[in-house]
Amino acid sequence: MGSNFFGNIFRITTWGESHGPAIGVVIDGCPAGLELSEQDLLPDLHRRAPGSNPHTSTRKEPDFPQILSGVFEGKTTGAPISILIPNQDANSQAYRSLENLLRPGHANFTYLAKYGIFDYRGGGRSSARETVCRVAAGSVAKKFLLQVNISIQAYVKQIGSIQATELELSSALTNAVYCPDAKASKQMIAELERVRLEGDSLGGVVEFVAWGLPAGLGDPIYEKLEANLAKAMLTLPATKGFEIGSGFDGAAMQGSLHNDLYENQNGAIRTQTNSAGGILGGISTGMPLVGRVAFKPASSIAKPQTTVTMEGQAAILELPAGSRHDPCVAIRAVPVVEAMLALVLADAILLNRCACI
Amino acid sequence: MGSNFFGNIFRITTWGESHGPAIGVVIDGCPAGLELSEQDLLPDLHRRAPGSNPHTSTRKEPDFPQILSGVFEGKTTGAPISILIPNQDANSQAYRSLENLLRPGHANFTYLAKYGIFDYRGGGRSSARETVCRVAAGSVAKKFLLQVNISIQAYVKQIGSIQATELELSSALTNAVYCPDAKASKQMIAELERVRLEGDSLGGVVEFVAWGLPAGLGDPIYEKLEANLAKAMLTLPATKGFEIGSGFDGAAMQGSLHNDLYENQNGAIRTQTNSAGGILGGISTGMPLVGRVAFKPASSIAKPQTTVTMEGQAAILELPAGSRHDPCVAIRAVPVVEAMLALVLADAILLNRCACI
Amino acid sequence: MGSNFFGNIFRITTWGESHGPAIGVVIDGCPAGLELSEQDLLPDLHRRAPGSNPHTSTRKEPDFPQILSGVFEGKTTGAPISILIPNQDANSQAYRSLENLLRPGHANFTYLAKYGIFDYRGGGRSSARETVCRVAAGSVAKKFLLQVNISIQAYVKQIGSIQATELELSSALTNAVYCPDAKASKQMIAELERVRLEGDSLGGVVEFVAWGLPAGLGDPIYEKLEANLAKAMLTLPATKGFEIGSGFDGAAMQGSLHNDLYENQNGAIRTQTNSAGGILGGISTGMPLVGRVAFKPASSIAKPQTTVTMEGQAAILELPAGSRHDPCVAIRAVPVVEAMLALVLADAILLNRCACI
Amino acid sequence: MGSNFFGNIFRITTWGESHGPAIGVVIDGCPAGLELSEQDLLPDLHRRAPGSNPHTSTRKEPDFPQILSGVFEGKTTGAPISILIPNQDANSQAYRSLENLLRPGHANFTYLAKYGIFDYRGGGRSSARETVCRVAAGSVAKKFLLQVNISIQAYVKQIGSIQATELELSSALTNAVYCPDAKASKQMIAELERVRLEGDSLGGVVEFVAWGLPAGLGDPIYEKLEANLAKAMLTLPATKGFEIGSGFDGAAMQGSLHNDLYENQNGAIRTQTNSAGGILGGISTGMPLVGRVAFKPASSIAKPQTTVTMEGQAAILELPAGSRHDPCVAIRAVPVVEAMLALVLADAILLNRCACI
Repeated sequence: MGSNFFGNIFRITTWGESHGPAIGVVIDGCPAGLELSEQDLLPDLHRRAPGSNPHTSTRKEPDFPQILSGVFEGKTTGAPISILIPNQDANSQAYRSLENLLRPGHANFTYLAKYGIFDYRGGGRSSARETVCRVAAGSVAKKFLLQVNISIQAYVKQIGSIQATELELSSALTNAVYCPDAKASKQMIAELERVRLEGDSLGGVVEFVAWGLPAGLGDPIYEKLEANLAKAMLTLPATKGFEIGSGFDGAAMQGSLHNDLYENQNGAIRTQTNSAGGILGGISTGMPLVGRVAFKPASSIAKPQTTVTMEGQAAILELPAGSRHDPCVAIRAVPVVEAMLALVLADAILLNRCACI
Repeated sequence: MGSNFFGNIFRITTWGESHGPAIGVVIDGCPAGLELSEQDLLPDLHRRAPGSNPHTSTRKEPDFPQILSGVFEGKTTGAPISILIPNQDANSQAYRSLENLLRPGHANFTYLAKYGIFDYRGGGRSSARETVCRVAAGSVAKKFLLQVNISIQAYVKQIGSIQATELELSSALTNAVYCPDAKASKQMIAELERVRLEGDSLGGVVEFVAWGLPAGLGDPIYEKLEANLAKAMLTLPATKGFEIGSGFDGAAMQGSLHNDLYENQNGAIRTQTNSAGGILGGISTGMPLVGRVAFKPASSIAKPQTTVTMEGQAAILELPAGSRHDPCVAIRAVPVVEAMLALVLADAILLNRCACI
Repeated sequence: MGSNFFGNIFRITTWGESHGPAIGVVIDGCPAGLELSEQDLLPDLHRRAPGSNPHTSTRKEPDFPQILSGVFEGKTTGAPISILIPNQDANSQAYRSLENLLRPGHANFTYLAKYGIFDYRGGGRSSARETVCRVAAGSVAKKFLLQVNISIQAYVKQIGSIQATELELSSALTNAVYCPDAKASKQMIAELERVRLEGDSLGGVVEFVAWGLPAGLGDPIYEKLEANLAKAMLTLPATKGFEIGSGFDGAAMQGSLHNDLYENQNGAIRTQTNSAGGILGGISTGMPLVGRVAFKPASSIAKPQTTVTMEGQAAILELPAGSRHDPCVAIRAVPVVEAMLALVLADAILLNRCACI
Repeated sequence: MGSNFFGNIFRITTWGESHGPAIGVVIDGCPAGLELSEQDLLPDLHRRAPGSNPHTSTRKEPDFPQILSGVFEGKTTGAPISILIPNQDANSQAYRSLENLLRPGHANFTYLAKYGIFDYRGGGRSSARETVCRVAAGSVAKKFLLQVNISIQAYVKQIGSIQATELELSSALTNAVYCPDAKASKQMIAELERVRLEGDSLGGVVEFVAWGLPAGLGDPIYEKLEANLAKAMLTLPATKGFEIGSGFDGAAMQGSLHNDLYENQNGAIRTQTNSAGGILGGISTGMPLVGRVAFKPASSIAKPQTTVTMEGQAAILELPAGSRHDPCVAIRAVPVVEAMLALVLADAILLNRCACI
């Protein structure tokens, strides 16, 4: 099956390790005729890039993508789009001392158990560096979605125990923690600074919305839109949960309150509320698509931790001075969540063309 | 792609509507040599069956499965296993009056938007009746998992706002609400009775555990074990959320607390805690696999609700007297969650055989 | 992966053994809105049925298909279409004596090598009985293709060393050997009678044509239309070869003769010849799609043959008196080849809807 | 689905156009622990390279592959292996004059019909340049196959109407036309020279063999080994036919002659003959796997040809002086056929690990 591809019709395959010469993605199934250039990829890549934000890792990656195929005279041709992004600031030496230690919350133990070999440099294939490929591909998917008037946005809903309650979405685009609540943002930043000084990290929640979906998008039973979204989001590093619409809060509700009642709004059938989060039976209702993704606190922390070596000897894990890591991975995950959402929706739009004779 | 199959190597394809003559599943990829008979399927089917429990729908379905292929002299042959389950208590007439109404929280609006046609009888293909196929296939997967010493259990963790805190798992097998906390169970039952009299419904949360997984099970990046579990669970009717390990609570934690520290337990590498829920980087750690699924309150309620007709005319939806529905779908979902868990794990066990040369 | 499904969007999954209670197919991905009833399946099933023709096996199977799902009020709903066909004339006792012998040209040795178990009754899963499912599904695909004005026909081109040279295609529909050349048919029938008396069998070639394909159907590189056709045809029992257009004869030609020159025919771009068989670069040209499938002589022959037992002891294989088999499987393969062609084209038509923005 | 990937477990995805900056392949699912370096890829790439042989195109491509991921300390890690091959001798200007002409036997008409856009430079994505990626991936698959003692070889069986009858296979490795018959080779070379002077081209047939397959490899019904081989080979540019074992000749035989009789050879069950070509019922018998692929004469010829412009105006197509093309594509196809064979077998070896409990 391979485990490095995602999507059915609009399909991506990614490759590359954190500290290899480059990392990349092949998009197979992007429809022909879409205007596309490297410039289209830069805004999202910039939002994801470490170093673009004082509250994220200090690793610097200019992340200039190269489109190596699939575009001719400014338009996609239907051929696979290969995007390569050089790795430029890989500092493998810094990780040398960790080579033989099991890292709590990391994947080196499990990769070794599975494959018997692990490229430990910067986390190798298990590094969140891989998400740069998703973001590049997501930008292509977003361009396609705009053709059918679907727009999407993700933002930080929670960091640690601080929750955003005001949702001024436009403000989230420029906010240092990508949070649409100015007041909560300030608290989040203070909290991030606090844990950074402690050498610790925080978890968070990213919320996503998509507008403009037609009713009837998605598939029943095993390709439900929410199921594909859940899978998409849980493929992201450090994720521990997914909700659509009311989510876990919905479990505590009664049906008479949870049910979204239909009404006729000037000829369009809409629901008065949106507990469903825009999906019923796996298929879109035409209401906004709303969901959330939970991220655990970053596993890489400056505080020393007890662990064992690969051979099972007790040891202390202490990251080298100057190690670069995010105190809260949810922040940089915002454009990545958008990318996964865009990929799922682009795929669903294409599959939907086959629903009727 | 079809949207009616699930799994890669161990793959199921289901078919059938709630009120058709029968419903069924084809299992493709079940390894040869597994002892199997219809008897093996009965216990789980019975746990799922409506009418087996005073707190579930009163529809009676004996659900005697027929294995039509793939088994010879008591063992699987590697050929597809076709299991057919007749529908016996379908009462289509009861739904006739609802034919033209959009049902809040149901899929008739979205199916119509997608396909332009909808078999409204008992919800047609969108009915939770389809999950009987998953349970039958899940029993086969469980038998296979037992060969490699993996066992699994799901149980009700929450109904409405009542949570189980004691986890006497063996008690959940016989408990009327499949809940491992005797005290909470009583409260849940009282609450179910309360909403039933109101003509209302409740949501709930099902928790699942799997024991005996080797370290190294699952795949990185886009076939992460938790991602496949998230998809599996969100394909179930009425689900709104999924968590693995610490889930959404993990988002509020600090890394130094969340990280599971490694230790050497008599030669075996284990973690002291299990925030991860048994998975790191998409691959099992060897610790118990733990997760949760959120179910919304059942959409079918006895209380009248405002709605519109398919043509958009205002209307009142009132279920016919004697309509059968579950006040809380999470209860009967317990064996279904187990089935999806078993299917994901069986697939992962087989795929794992291809990891190394 | 499972090995019992075929197709991408329009996908079939088949199940069942020759001598089980029934055999069946699930069609997943058939577009909604197609008029369909069991009556639509009968003509092709009748053409394939043994006993419908003096020159085929004498096994009698009425083959009345039951559509168990996916059709509502006479139209497909987008839900999976489950078709079940009871097995009625299975005579398992006749094969009992062969249970322990390796049968030359049969699959019992290879199935045993792979699975360690084999349902020998009537060939079990390896029996050509499975093709009844393909024919039923093919009839559905043909109905869909007619919506887009694509029609198809297959016919016997060669039996033994006798080739059809006249191609009066309408005559092939009723001809006893499904051959469009009246004169050759007579020779074929005489030859069939000769080998039948010898207790022997003959190979043959089936040719297929599809008309009405738009230019632009199919996909480049690994989903080329001819590649999917080649796979489709080589999944049929007893096939040894596949050709598209000029086929193996084309290998002996020079390019200046083989190339099909373009011309403008009243505004439509067509080619003067059709060496390509209607495909260039994996994508249809709009010319008729033409190809051929080679079938080996049937492996089941009345003549005694030397062989070994499963344990490797020398033995003589002699089919029981009254065993039923086809002297030339190519004849009954005609509707099966049509079915596979229809399935490939229906899938391509649907996939093509995703080619452009 | 994407149309640029091939394989189930051992899966390749290729990308790139003839005249883009580079072309490449991502191998997903190669087992961990295989020793691999760029050196391993060079011999096959060299055999395929134009210019390595006086009877092939004069385009020079050093084809030095770069392995960008998936290998650590000399071994595969289970992560995707990305191989990039720069395009160095692309001469796009030479094709400028052909931009608006439909080229007989080429794919520009069909790509335009499908996508509405075509990268005409060197044939863009439809160029046989893509096969360099298959060869690189095939070398990896061959290394894996050697671990299980499977070896493979392809060679030219026929050019134009000249057939090899002597099969001294070792000689084919160094022979200028990769033909194992010294005498036939000389005739082939003379024939190639004749058509080259005429500005014409020739078709050919490539035969392949694999030794060392265990009995039991491959899958029944829709994943038959011969079906996957047929698909694999028909995805190659310019192919028109595929045969396994007796192929089309088998259609003219009687069953008593065609059937391969079993015998016990020193404890091993073997067949006396190999009409089957090593496969029965889709599964390997343990005998050598033998098949053939027919290639049409190259479409690019120096002789002027009548055609039409994209707008349908009559025109004459004349390739620019100095255009580079192969007089017979079958020659350079030899390592490509081996690559496709290796990919299919590597996939089957891995899938086979899942056959039994």
